[in-house]
Amino acid sequence: MWLNGARGSVATTAVSGLLALREGLVPPTGCASELLDADLPPWEAFVVGGHDVVDTPLVKRVESLVRDGVLPHDLAGWVADGLDAVDAEIRPGHDPAAFSGSQAGVARRLAADIDDFRTRHGLARVVVVNVASTEPPVHVPHESLAELEEALAVPGNAVLPPSSLVAYAAFQAGCPFVDFTPSTGVALPALDELARERSLPYAGRDGKTGETLLRAAIAPMFTSRALKVLSWTGTNLLGGGDGATLEDPAHAGSKLASKARGLAALLGAEVTAPLHIDHVPDLGERKTAWDHVSFEGFLGARMSLQLTWSGLDSSLAAPLVLDLARLLAAAHAAGRTGAQGALAFFFKDPLGSDEHRLAEQARELHEWARGLDDPRARETD
Amino acid sequence: MWLNGARGSVATTAVSGLLALREGLVPPTGCASELLDADLPPWEAFVVGGHDVVDTPLVKRVESLVRDGVLPHDLAGWVADGLDAVDAEIRPGHDPAAFSGSQAGVARRLAADIDDFRTRHGLARVVVVNVASTEPPVHVPHESLAELEEALAVPGNAVLPPSSLVAYAAFQAGCPFVDFTPSTGVALPALDELARERSLPYAGRDGKTGETLLRAAIAPMFTSRALKVLSWTGTNLLGGGDGATLEDPAHAGSKLASKARGLAALLGAEVTAPLHIDHVPDLGERKTAWDHVSFEGFLGARMSLQLTWSGLDSSLAAPLVLDLARLLAAAHAAGRTGAQGALAFFFKDPLGSDEHRLAEQARELHEWARGLDDPRARETD
Amino acid sequence: MWLNGARGSVATTAVSGLLALREGLVPPTGCASELLDADLPPWEAFVVGGHDVVDTPLVKRVESLVRDGVLPHDLAGWVADGLDAVDAEIRPGHDPAAFSGSQAGVARRLAADIDDFRTRHGLARVVVVNVASTEPPVHVPHESLAELEEALAVPGNAVLPPSSLVAYAAFQAGCPFVDFTPSTGVALPALDELARERSLPYAGRDGKTGETLLRAAIAPMFTSRALKVLSWTGTNLLGGGDGATLEDPAHAGSKLASKARGLAALLGAEVTAPLHIDHVPDLGERKTAWDHVSFEGFLGARMSLQLTWSGLDSSLAAPLVLDLARLLAAAHAAGRTGAQGALAFFFKDPLGSDEHRLAEQARELHEWARGLDDPRARETD
Amino acid sequence: MWLNGARGSVATTAVSGLLALREGLVPPTGCASELLDADLPPWEAFVVGGHDVVDTPLVKRVESLVRDGVLPHDLAGWVADGLDAVDAEIRPGHDPAAFSGSQAGVARRLAADIDDFRTRHGLARVVVVNVASTEPPVHVPHESLAELEEALAVPGNAVLPPSSLVAYAAFQAGCPFVDFTPSTGVALPALDELARERSLPYAGRDGKTGETLLRAAIAPMFTSRALKVLSWTGTNLLGGGDGATLEDPAHAGSKLASKARGLAALLGAEVTAPLHIDHVPDLGERKTAWDHVSFEGFLGARMSLQLTWSGLDSSLAAPLVLDLARLLAAAHAAGRTGAQGALAFFFKDPLGSDEHRLAEQARELHEWARGLDDPRARETD
Repeated sequence: MWLNGARGSVATTAVSGLLALREGLVPPTGCASELLDADLPPWEAFVVGGHDVVDTPLVKRVESLVRDGVLPHDLAGWVADGLDAVDAEIRPGHDPAAFSGSQAGVARRLAADIDDFRTRHGLARVVVVNVASTEPPVHVPHESLAELEEALAVPGNAVLPPSSLVAYAAFQAGCPFVDFTPSTGVALPALDELARERSLPYAGRDGKTGETLLRAAIAPMFTSRALKVLSWTGTNLLGGGDGATLEDPAHAGSKLASKARGLAALLGAEVTAPLHIDHVPDLGERKTAWDHVSFEGFLGARMSLQLTWSGLDSSLAAPLVLDLARLLAAAHAAGRTGAQGALAFFFKDPLGSDEHRLAEQARELHEWARGLDDPRARETD
Repeated sequence: MWLNGARGSVATTAVSGLLALREGLVPPTGCASELLDADLPPWEAFVVGGHDVVDTPLVKRVESLVRDGVLPHDLAGWVADGLDAVDAEIRPGHDPAAFSGSQAGVARRLAADIDDFRTRHGLARVVVVNVASTEPPVHVPHESLAELEEALAVPGNAVLPPSSLVAYAAFQAGCPFVDFTPSTGVALPALDELARERSLPYAGRDGKTGETLLRAAIAPMFTSRALKVLSWTGTNLLGGGDGATLEDPAHAGSKLASKARGLAALLGAEVTAPLHIDHVPDLGERKTAWDHVSFEGFLGARMSLQLTWSGLDSSLAAPLVLDLARLLAAAHAAGRTGAQGALAFFFKDPLGSDEHRLAEQARELHEWARGLDDPRARETD
Repeated sequence: MWLNGARGSVATTAVSGLLALREGLVPPTGCASELLDADLPPWEAFVVGGHDVVDTPLVKRVESLVRDGVLPHDLAGWVADGLDAVDAEIRPGHDPAAFSGSQAGVARRLAADIDDFRTRHGLARVVVVNVASTEPPVHVPHESLAELEEALAVPGNAVLPPSSLVAYAAFQAGCPFVDFTPSTGVALPALDELARERSLPYAGRDGKTGETLLRAAIAPMFTSRALKVLSWTGTNLLGGGDGATLEDPAHAGSKLASKARGLAALLGAEVTAPLHIDHVPDLGERKTAWDHVSFEGFLGARMSLQLTWSGLDSSLAAPLVLDLARLLAAAHAAGRTGAQGALAFFFKDPLGSDEHRLAEQARELHEWARGLDDPRARETD
Repeated sequence: MWLNGARGSVATTAVSGLLALREGLVPPTGCASELLDADLPPWEAFVVGGHDVVDTPLVKRVESLVRDGVLPHDLAGWVADGLDAVDAEIRPGHDPAAFSGSQAGVARRLAADIDDFRTRHGLARVVVVNVASTEPPVHVPHESLAELEEALAVPGNAVLPPSSLVAYAAFQAGCPFVDFTPSTGVALPALDELARERSLPYAGRDGKTGETLLRAAIAPMFTSRALKVLSWTGTNLLGGGDGATLEDPAHAGSKLASKARGLAALLGAEVTAPLHIDHVPDLGERKTAWDHVSFEGFLGARMSLQLTWSGLDSSLAAPLVLDLARLLAAAHAAGRTGAQGALAFFFKDPLGSDEHRLAEQARELHEWARGLDDPRARETD
């Protein structure tokens, strides 16, 4: 597993948890892959490296995660050695502000880092997972891979946002890719073309960890009962780095758009759905969301539902990161290529799928996992 | 459609709505049967009668339902004539306090009322729906139909609670039966035997209209994500007649037990789940439920979800009553017999089914409805 | 009582209620003035007129207020005649878009309307209350009355926003003035100068009817217990005309600023306090606010409080409008002049007071009311 | 300060905090006494001892309080030595199950422990604070001190519940007494007689730390606005030892009764007010309360308020324990005797006061504190 953004909260939680799982110190609570009827790589099989633009040691980040209730107090001691080993495998990430030469050159350097990691550890495959900060939405005009590569070769030309450059480098290094953020990442026709050309599977995007998870579970209740949702408003209070990033409306744009698409798809109609993300630093890793749903029933009766979700962001995201690394590794081994829509269960804005209902997504995931061992299932991709 | 408890809030709302639907005055919001791919009897085909122990005219009940926001102000005028016609078809119900002779005799009288209604209106079939007040749980020792009928014939012997006597009478009159309440009703081996002997379908029990509906939608979210629910507490504030009945712990027992069974089944484990029903008269038909779910995620992280549901009880129940009347009529026409477990979607404590997850129940319902026209599907009952 | 915005929801509710109170048909629930130990004018003494730029009849507005649950169904019949009489006393308001001549001329016309009303009905005094739609914040540079009046006389010169022009006209007509909205209104040094010159009392601004009322009650709990509030976030869902107006950030600016000032004053410190107003049309007159308060206790312990307020905006505002009309009439009779800070109890952004704690405001109000009969108390204004 | 129940969560938190405050390691957040304009004993002046029936060392209890978020992780190290010193001053408490001789004898032993502590440390005075587990309500028939003492002298006669026996012993040892629990404690005429005879002040009972604190702040909002509360329901979810104790309806009786009295006093009328306490072990020290208030406004409009309080019980209680120890010490020094009603601010069921409104209680507390230095104020007790 290669993490882009390897020193962030989600990555640090995922790595700490992986180390603890490997030692059998904790149960795999929150890991949905444990429930699947499939032959997935065991936790012991994973080695972790990554890219990051900052150089805070992981043990430092662990301290603040302990303070915020994400990691248990005694974990820090157990996993300190393992974290140092991962630390030694983290290479400098691509910093768009301090970039020289062409983006093609940057991609070659990133791919070489991954390739070197694979070779040194003698790994069958490396799954690259993007868990870096959310970027503002961008438009990339290059539709075909050929056009894109031509543009990438031009020195000084910032063609791709960092998340997409990482996806490009991952594919060039022959690696499956997971986009866990709402950034552009792999969601470009030219990158889909590259993945198919190299016979690589990928999945994305925007891990579904809180309010949207709830909406995906609850909205089908209204539609299956023929109840008419009139409005569905949401307020998200976020501390931590994510809150600070998303306070900037440009960065929040990606996330808000992906949430709104999901809700409209779930309800089959546009509803009044104002949504806010507020940065509330004192909350730390705690993420509190309040949703108010106003709906109409029989003979026009007016009713409502309120939800208050109080989650720990990294605690919810980290096991999904591990699940996805396992699942993409298994998909790669089984020869799956392109967007794995059957992994929509994990994402707010699923690539390769129109299904937003959580229970249906869970059913598709289970079927997909069962099919991994079946060579005939490959054709259905 | 024959309603036991025909002058209650749910019955009055269902009848008022049916009249309005028949005239095309309102859309069928809240009627899940409208979403099914099946050939169901149209609203125009229904004639309504029923039993009740009270004699308040339906138009009187409509007034209080308008005041409580269940029925729109202008509906009362539209449906007054139709309500008077239904009023004329309501016969005195069985009053256990003022009962003479044997229960077998009572059942014959009730069955004769239904039979007379069917004959006078030239109906193909009559679906009997129990929407009377919740009874305390009882134990009925007579396992076989023969034993039961022997006991029923003894004068002065109160063998069956009223809800079960009504089910017995319905089957004797050759009618499908729906138990919309948590009372004992049809859930007795001897009555199942009778239904099968007469080739009659039935469904129950305890319409799923509020807190349990939500739980059935949300609990699978936790299990499919491998999140561990530690406690799930509930507080229900009820006004109206239902609140007054359920304030009595003996009556509430049936309902609390049916809710607890559902939650344990959904989560696959026992959790701390205190549950209260409080009678708060000022709320009228409004039913407010607060649920607090405490759960554990990755590495033992503690998180929570709160839900506040503000529903109008009769507005939620009435369309399901109409749905079930249509579906049982179609099941009868298609020759289905015994407990229709595929209708678990509608019930807190589904007879003939172990499935409590709402999305799976919806899927089973849709399949069942599609199979109604298919003679081969009959075998699977 | 002369209402600026006499055909709006608040005005219509206040007038309907006044008519019902006058006939003794309803108790004075929500009228805080009833609790005061003072000799206030009785409901029977009030005659109502007003200005408005729209001409929807009041009876029409009553219909939609009945539908929204603000007015009881049977009230419409009782007060129809009284509403027609008030309708006949409503004159065209000042429309800034269709204005010719000078603002001084407009003010003379408005003052003449009020004067005519007073004369025709032989009234001792007329209290003018502004309940028109919220305006965006403006800057008025004219500090002194002389400067202001010079500017007002210039033809075509839009010196004052409508709310302030109405206050100017009220004072010119010798009337006490209440600003029930967050608009600029009377809050200008030049208008204070005019009020004092004419020996007129006034009060404002922005009626405290929902979220801010709660905050004024609860924030002192934290401060008196030495608990440290870290953040206090708010989301307001508004339907109705007010919601539509406040969806426009320019108009919302006044309201958000007045709420933020209040919170900082209550807590004695700046806290993270993001606040949103969302327009959710299906809610009608219902206004739902969710507040999340995060606070720190002993040894840094983190705790929280959530509030969900579900109010009917006009139901909360209307009795305060009647209270303020009574209180300003009494203040005028008692010879009080200038900003009546002791009426801070009624306002989000009290003029003439720094007190935001509700209980202290209530105490000051009671003292002020007791002092109305006492000639010596006049000196303390 | 002498704590009855010195090894419980509240006591351990109070002692840990006192040690940290004494070293200036933490600010006095949550200590209301810091806001008073009075000459109170400084934190450095306090020495702590106590009684308890269990013998878990304080450092052990600290561990679980750290885990529950009550105490910061690094505090345990800072205060370990101080805790050991307090540990050495804790004597075996009175165990009603293993009691021989007369209660008079037990009281002499308890008083001797306190007296010995005072002598050894050369203290001016010792304030005894009861923070032991809540007892079921009991009836003590002995109205006068003489009758009571006669009964106490009879061997084997369990006249007083433990909390009252502790109060009796405290007074016999010449110590002011604080009852921080809803147990009977000092609230007996014979004990009041004893306190007055010995010129000792006392205060109680049942520390106001959560739901009731909120109610005391919010209920006056409704009454001062003439809004009519129709129902006020409450659900309390408690983990920890307090939850286990209060799950037993006999023990909960004291607490529920004290809460109900407070609400009726605040609203000036009986309202529908069902209240539940549920034991939810996974919550640990976290106490979550949900209140639903239904109220009527102008013209019968129906509105509601919901509150969700998420507090850490010991974090809220501990600073009040320290405040009360300081205040009773100062009251003793100032010669105050009997029930100190002006401390109602701290209690759910205030002895010597009928005031339940929080803001009024705060005002009375401030006045009382200012009067401590004033010899003439003594007369007003």
